[in-house]
Order: sequence, then C-alpha cells, then structure tokens
Amino acid sequence: MTFTLDATHDTQRKSWVESANAAGSDFPIQNLPFGRFRAAGSSEAFRIGVAIGDQILDLRAAGLIATDDMNALMAAAPAERQALRLKISDGLAAGSPQQAAWAQALLPQAQAEYTVPCKVGDYTDFYTGIHHATTIGKLFRPDQPLMPNYKWVPIGYHGRASSIVVSGQSFKRPQGQTKAPDATEPSFGPCKRLDYELELGFYVGQGNALGESIGIDQAEAHLFGVGLFNDWSARDLQAWEYQPLGPFLAKNFASTVSPWIVTMEALAPFRAPFTRPEGDPQPLPYLDGAVNRAQGQLDITLEVYVQTAKMRAEGAEPARLTHGRVKDAAYWTAAQLVAHHTVNGCNLQPGDLLGSGTLSGPTLDAAGSLMELTLGGKQAITLPNGEQRTFLQDGDTLILRGWCEREGAVRIGLGEASGTVLA
Amino acid sequence: MTFTLDATHDTQRKSWVESANAAGSDFPIQNLPFGRFRAAGSSEAFRIGVAIGDQILDLRAAGLIATDDMNALMAAAPAERQALRLKISDGLAAGSPQQAAWAQALLPQAQAEYTVPCKVGDYTDFYTGIHHATTIGKLFRPDQPLMPNYKWVPIGYHGRASSIVVSGQSFKRPQGQTKAPDATEPSFGPCKRLDYELELGFYVGQGNALGESIGIDQAEAHLFGVGLFNDWSARDLQAWEYQPLGPFLAKNFASTVSPWIVTMEALAPFRAPFTRPEGDPQPLPYLDGAVNRAQGQLDITLEVYVQTAKMRAEGAEPARLTHGRVKDAAYWTAAQLVAHHTVNGCNLQPGDLLGSGTLSGPTLDAAGSLMELTLGGKQAITLPNGEQRTFLQDGDTLILRGWCEREGAVRIGLGEASGTVLA
Repeated sequence: MTFTLDATHDTQRKSWVESANAAGSDFPIQNLPFGRFRAAGSSEAFRIGVAIGDQILDLRAAGLIATDDMNALMAAAPAERQALRLKISDGLAAGSPQQAAWAQALLPQAQAEYTVPCKVGDYTDFYTGIHHATTIGKLFRPDQPLMPNYKWVPIGYHGRASSIVVSGQSFKRPQGQTKAPDATEPSFGPCKRLDYELELGFYVGQGNALGESIGIDQAEAHLFGVGLFNDWSARDLQAWEYQPLGPFLAKNFASTVSPWIVTMEALAPFRAPFTRPEGDPQPLPYLDGAVNRAQGQLDITLEVYVQTAKMRAEGAEPARLTHGRVKDAAYWTAAQLVAHHTVNGCNLQPGDLLGSGTLSGPTLDAAGSLMELTLGGKQAITLPNGEQRTFLQDGDTLILRGWCEREGAVRIGLGEASGTVLA
Repeated sequence: MTFTLDATHDTQRKSWVESANAAGSDFPIQNLPFGRFRAAGSSEAFRIGVAIGDQILDLRAAGLIATDDMNALMAAAPAERQALRLKISDGLAAGSPQQAAWAQALLPQAQAEYTVPCKVGDYTDFYTGIHHATTIGKLFRPDQPLMPNYKWVPIGYHGRASSIVVSGQSFKRPQGQTKAPDATEPSFGPCKRLDYELELGFYVGQGNALGESIGIDQAEAHLFGVGLFNDWSARDLQAWEYQPLGPFLAKNFASTVSPWIVTMEALAPFRAPFTRPEGDPQPLPYLDGAVNRAQGQLDITLEVYVQTAKMRAEGAEPARLTHGRVKDAAYWTAAQLVAHHTVNGCNLQPGDLLGSGTLSGPTLDAAGSLMELTLGGKQAITLPNGEQRTFLQDGDTLILRGWCEREGAVRIGLGEASGTVLA
C-alpha cells in the first residue's frame, strides 16, 4: 500500500472551526485524528469523535457514522476509511454547507474527557529503538550490547492490554520483589527505579485470519493509525523477574496512550525512506519490500517533559527531557513489525496495539528513558528549578508530545500522553 | 476463600441423564463444567451450556440464565455462581421436577461444536513446573539449570489471546527465522522443532480494579475454573528470538484449550496442601497464607496422547506419551499466581486466562513436552507402531486429558484438548 496525497492534505484548505487554522495547532483540518470522548464528569457512554482545532466533532451527532464502536470503524477497508476522512474534511472545510448542522455536533476539548481510543484486544511491544537497545545492553553486557539477533529479528513480546490507560489518568507506584546485587534474598516493597519509555503505538485496523501472513508491502493497509505510548517501567522489579521469559510485573501495572489516533492517511505527507546503515545486514525477504524501502519510515518528532509536584506548586511549566526524531531512532518500520508479527500465522485484530519500543535518538538529549538519561541511575539530571532526578518520584507528571512538520505540508500533532505517579 | 462441600458434591447423587452415571464419565452430576456450544455445522450464535454425561444442557433454554455472554456469567460473585451450580445440580438430579422441561434443552455432545469457552481478554503464561524448568534449564545452562529467582518469583509473561483456539481446531505449522548454532546468518522456513506443552489454564472470574492487589487467601475467589491448555511451541524459532524479551512468534501462532471449564466449586473435593521441599525458601508473605498452605494445590491427573496420520490410517488408538499429577509438578499454586499477578496493581478481568506452565512430573514418563521426552531432540521416542518422533510431524494429533479421582469423591474429568498440525 502506498500513501498518496488527496484533497484532505491540501495545504490551502482551512476550516470553519477557526482554532484549527491557528499556526502550531496539533489538529488542523489536515489531521482529523479519531478518539473516544464524552462530556467531562458525565456518565454517558463514550462516543467517537474527531479532533479539529480545540473542538471535537461528534461523528454520530454529525450524521457521519451510526456506531459508538471504534473497533468496528477501525475494521473497515482502507478505501472506506479514506472516504469517511474525505467526508469529514469536506464538511469541516471553510464554506461547507454542513457548517450550521455540524456546529451543533462540536464539543470543546476543554469540556471533554477521554478513554482509551479503542478496545485493545492484544498489545505487543517491540524493541525497534537501536540506540535504546544498545545503551541498555551496555549496562548489562559491556562487551556485546546488542544481541546477535537484533539486526535480523524485529524483537517483540506480548504486553498487558487491561492496564492500558488514557492520558490524564494517574496510577499508583507499583510494589513487588527486588533483589539488591549483594543481597542473598529478595525483599518486598515499592519500586525504587520507576521509569518511563517514549514510544509510538501503532493501532491495527483490518486484521488477518489465523494462519495467514501479511506481506510487507500490504502491511500498512492493516494499520489504522498512530498514537503516543508511554510504557512505564519498574527497572528494579524488571532486573529480578525478567529471566528467562521477559518483563512482566515491571510493565503491566500501567501503560499510557494519547487520546487521539492519528490515521495513516494523515501521516501520508510525512513518510521517509527506510535505509540500513552501511555494513548492516539487509532484511530477510519477508521484511523487505519496495514500498517499505521508499516510504517505510515516519518523520515524527517526539519530546518528553516532566513536571514535578514542586514545579506544579510553583506554577512552573513542564521541563523538557528529550527531543528527537522517530526516523533517527527506529531500526525497523511499522510495516516490518506487521509482517514479522504475522509471518508465523499469528492473527492481528482491529484495535490491537503495537508498541514501537523506546525511541531514543543517537545522542543523549534524545534518550527516551531515565535509565538512559541518568546512565542507569548513576548520574542524576538537574531540572530547571534545581530538583534532581535519577528515577521518577511520587507526584511527578510525565508528558509525551509528538508532531510532524515538513516543507510543503501543514504541521500536524499527536497531542500528548501524560500520567502522574501516585504514592 | 475456603472450599467446602455441599449437596452438589454428594457422592450418592445421580442424574436423570443416564450417561452421567456411567463409571468413568468425565461429566457426572458432581462436575457440571461450563462451555460455549452450538449445533455442529450451524451458524447460530454460540450458547452457554453445561456438560452432563454425553449431553449438553443449554442454560438459556432451561430458563437458568438470560445471556449468551460467558464473561458476564464468570464475573458474578462466588455466592451467585454457587447458587446457579446448586440449581443446575438439583434440576439434573434423578427425580427432579425439571426433568421433562430440561430434557428439551439437551443437545448430545456428538452433535455439538464448540468455541473457546469465553472471550479471553489477556492471557498470561506462568512457569510453575519446576521439573520442566530444571530440565529445560539444563539444556542451556548445565551448571545452573534453575535461575536464582525461580524459587522466589512465580515467573510469568504475557501471551497472545487472539490465537487461542478450541480443541478440535487444526493449525498450520508456523514458519519463521531460525539460526543453526554454526551458521553465521539466520535462515527462513517452516519450524523444524514443533512441540507441545502440557498445561492447565485457570480462568479468572471476578476481576480486580487497576491499582488494587488481591490477597493470597482471597485469590481463588477470583478464579472461575480450570481447563486443559496446550501451549504449542516452536523451539527453533524460540531459541533465536527469545533474548532478551522472551518468547514471541515461537508461541503466538496457536494455543489450544479444552471446551469445558471445570469450576473451582467442582474441584473442591480434590484440594491438596501446599508444601515446600525441605531447604527451599518459604514464600514471601504476599505469597503465603493459611488457606493456601492447607489446600492450595489441586490433585489433578494429566495425560498426553499422540495419534499420527499413519496411526489414524491404520485405525490405531492414540498412544500415551505422559502420565502425571499436577501436585507433583507445580511449584506454585493458582492462588499464588493470582496474588503475584496483582501485587503490583495489575488488573485481572473476567475471562482472563492464566496458564500454569508446562506441568512435568519428577520422572521422564511424566514430562510435559517433547523437548524433555527426547532430551532436546537428541533421542527419538518410538511409538507403538514403530514410528519415531523427536518433534511433531505434519498430521500428528496431540491430545491432552485430565481428571480428578479420590476416595470419598466421584471422579470428574476435564475432557480433552486436541489439535492437529497441518503442513
């Protein structure tokens, strides 16, 4: 599947929702991401909406769909999805005959609350950040930071779907077993090395039947879109529990997603070629394809911010920890993740979530976790107000942000994914 | 939660469904396991039924429930579940006034087809079989077969829910990357070391909220029941992919469950004390409780059979590979799995599945996988018709069976979980 530009990407197109036309808005008419919302504080069922400027268009109220079931909508064939996108774009465009009717179907984002944008059946986390894998690997195996399989296999493992929460929800610091390197027995208590992981989450659209594989160049037709994903990690729990079957309680206490899924169609102007560094092995044939080579990568910029309880009390803005670009961080493309995941016949279903793994850039200022930023907790970072951090403290709010910007295209944003650590 | 006996366990109780009274039936009136069925070959929605002898009682047709949603039924409080069990038992008992009406709500099992007994949201696999962990560990680390965490942490990891299939479904041999020990690069092709794993599957009933833990002695109140579980494993894929984050494509191509969930209530007569071998560490407090010590273990006998394509053609019965008892194999109890899984605040939901891990006994004739039975594929086993196997061949059907038998109780069975490997 190749991504081509159509009227919905027209850089001249403006919306009658004025806030969508403001420079720097995450949600201009060229974006149109999907989410599930309701009036804040209400107990209504969550409905499907599209973000436009600082408003949400209620798709059912606007007469565009007849369901509140996001997964059903995600399961649609790409052509159907694209037709819906075009209808939404046309109706929100300045001068549209729908303006009067659809204005009644808007809710200000400031008056909304969100839930996880779809029902996530299965969640898989990958490990595509090669600089992350190298830096973390160095802490454990200085002589061989990257495992021999890393450049051949898009390493992935299954995660917990039930504990995925939406941006704005706080969660309790997990407790569990840890063992100090010099202790003879483990001890029990609250996690002392609580970390975040800066990731993208790819949402599956149309699935595949059990026993059938998805070819690399058809892979992205099976993706609905992308959101921000924070894979909170309890490093001390992980170190003691993860051998030999991988992370478990270190990860499944909470993972935070952004409220909005930016569709693959909206990302069409922000594709980049997929290349391998010289000397690296070329992907095996099932992971290699012409479309993937031409436009497999996504040019998304990601940032991480922290706001401590003290900063909140002082009225200080969140402080930036990280700034980097996905295409400098990800060794494998989204299409390769889908092709690999299904090559053995594993079935993906609408709403499944594929985490990218921590997207750390090649330099320390683009590192996607505190484990990297603080060299395994050995060197604290200092925040603008003088506070220091090795790992997260109670009351810390962590915020992921992301956006796409490129000459000849209108900037679109992914919104944010924030979460606060409770005692 | 302690398990006590009531009228539903009365060894004198017989059913008006005569086949349920036959010696050796898996489904006497003391069992009453739950499943989802429909007339074979039909396209009706699956309905909830209870196995009784060689029949299925359609619970909705019998006027006992008003739903086809097994997960909703599983979410009920234990007292509600127990009340329903008593009603079913009373109505099926010989001399019951319901006989005439309920006889209309029976379908012979021979005329039924099944689906996975509930919607599995999240599936977790544990590693409670200490003899399995030791034998597999020896193949990789002769000096230290068991990891230092094994006797402290009930090791677990997340698995794939979408590819869980019900007994009777066949599946294609998976393909993927493997690397021979002496090769410099991986190659791609069909799995050459396809194996099974003999497990129990524990189904969650009432869940817990995110951020809340379940105490060890309340843990079993959150379990609905138990089924047979075959965690098919591609050993060659696993060896190349599993470092550092655990098994992925080696497992997620298919897992097979039995059609029936035997409830915790039905298992009440078959509890056994939980003890630790002398010299082994006692569990940490969150994994230790009076109820768990008194009756944490389950006395279930498990067997594995294979029937090759040649055996089928010759009309030969399946050949037994393994015979063993859960309580000799499992180092951790079901209650400990629930307490551990939630100690960090992870939320379990109705219908979630917890695999026990491979339940191999202390001797080779009780080994729960071919990896163990053939010493890592080095020593073929010979079947009664002279065929040899190191790993599974196309056309092989693998069958798990299980039952409980004890003086003073009526034998109950778990039925079977079978699956056939396709090319």
